[in-house]
Amino acid sequence: MNKGRLIIVSGPSGSGKDTVLEKLFSKHPEVRLSISSVTRAMREGETKDGKYHFVSREEFLSALDRGEMLEHNVYLGNYYGTPKKPVDDAIREDAEIILEIDVNGAKNIKKLYPDAVSVFIMPPSLQVLKERLSGRGTESHEQIEGRLKIALSEIEHAPKYDYIVINDKLDKAVEDLTAIIMSDRSKTERQINIINEVLNDAESCHW
Amino acid sequence: MNKGRLIIVSGPSGSGKDTVLEKLFSKHPEVRLSISSVTRAMREGETKDGKYHFVSREEFLSALDRGEMLEHNVYLGNYYGTPKKPVDDAIREDAEIILEIDVNGAKNIKKLYPDAVSVFIMPPSLQVLKERLSGRGTESHEQIEGRLKIALSEIEHAPKYDYIVINDKLDKAVEDLTAIIMSDRSKTERQINIINEVLNDAESCHW
Repeated sequence: MNKGRLIIVSGPSGSGKDTVLEKLFSKHPEVRLSISSVTRAMREGETKDGKYHFVSREEFLSALDRGEMLEHNVYLGNYYGTPKKPVDDAIREDAEIILEIDVNGAKNIKKLYPDAVSVFIMPPSLQVLKERLSGRGTESHEQIEGRLKIALSEIEHAPKYDYIVINDKLDKAVEDLTAIIMSDRSKTERQINIINEVLNDAESCHW
Repeated sequence: MNKGRLIIVSGPSGSGKDTVLEKLFSKHPEVRLSISSVTRAMREGETKDGKYHFVSREEFLSALDRGEMLEHNVYLGNYYGTPKKPVDDAIREDAEIILEIDVNGAKNIKKLYPDAVSVFIMPPSLQVLKERLSGRGTESHEQIEGRLKIALSEIEHAPKYDYIVINDKLDKAVEDLTAIIMSDRSKTERQINIINEVLNDAESCHW
């Protein structure tokens, strides 16, 4: 049986991570996305088929009790969690599943799935990061500076990731992430079956 | 300074390795190829710009004396060797260099360059391997069986490689090898400079 792969993707605000992932999924619909369960209310523009699975607080807490969450946290009184089953299904079914998560979540997940491949998406320079963070033009100097500080503190964790994707040009970043996922399929641990098959066939058959 | 990468490629007779590599180089001329030095005579169809660097026995032996060969061996009285300089140049210059070598040579090179990425190219099944080996139709049953045995003994080493590329359809195999090389460029150890640059810029500059 070949193995699938959990792929952890992190990246600060201003990395353009969401756009990179969107484009990846449109080109590779066979790559799965881990959908977080959240207890907060649906916002305008969000749908039931989007990045979140909206559940009640009761549903969330009982799933948590049953050990069905890989990790979870509470933010402004709402619960956010990563369901375990879709990840394990993907690995068993020889598929890739991408889990978009922050640097702290990534660290915890890597402990549970040491074989997970981790990718950090980042801006090409401080200048570009600043431009992207101030791009909306609706926030104060202090707000932008606050977001920059958070982004920089996340970038400090980048060296612990397996791969770094620099998002300078979007298409190139999507290509780089695609190469990481595609190359993973060729890793020996995921191809060992075919080697054994050829060698077993050779043993059991007469030319 | 970012780092280049030595990429070791092995594959038995019948794997179609040469055709995969040819097509890779035509699409990615920036990827380098390690050219072996050999003392045997040039054969019909071979050129000075091909896979081998033809040198005299004296030249070869004095290069060997000066420690300029990564590995070498003797076959039917002729010397074959891998020059060290092009490999080190490529690594220093942030480029990739492919070294096509057999399973024993690969083992020795991996000891010298533990960071080298190793790829084993193999046929999709025993049946296809047999068909490819007997394809020329000019050899006896015994000759083909001999080549099959050698191929199988090489495939036994495949599990020690980092990646396995199954050459069923040529284009897919070229794509898979390309993804391995492209993804390597995103490995954190090759991107650490850009992380440090962003963080250093942030430290030394006032918003």
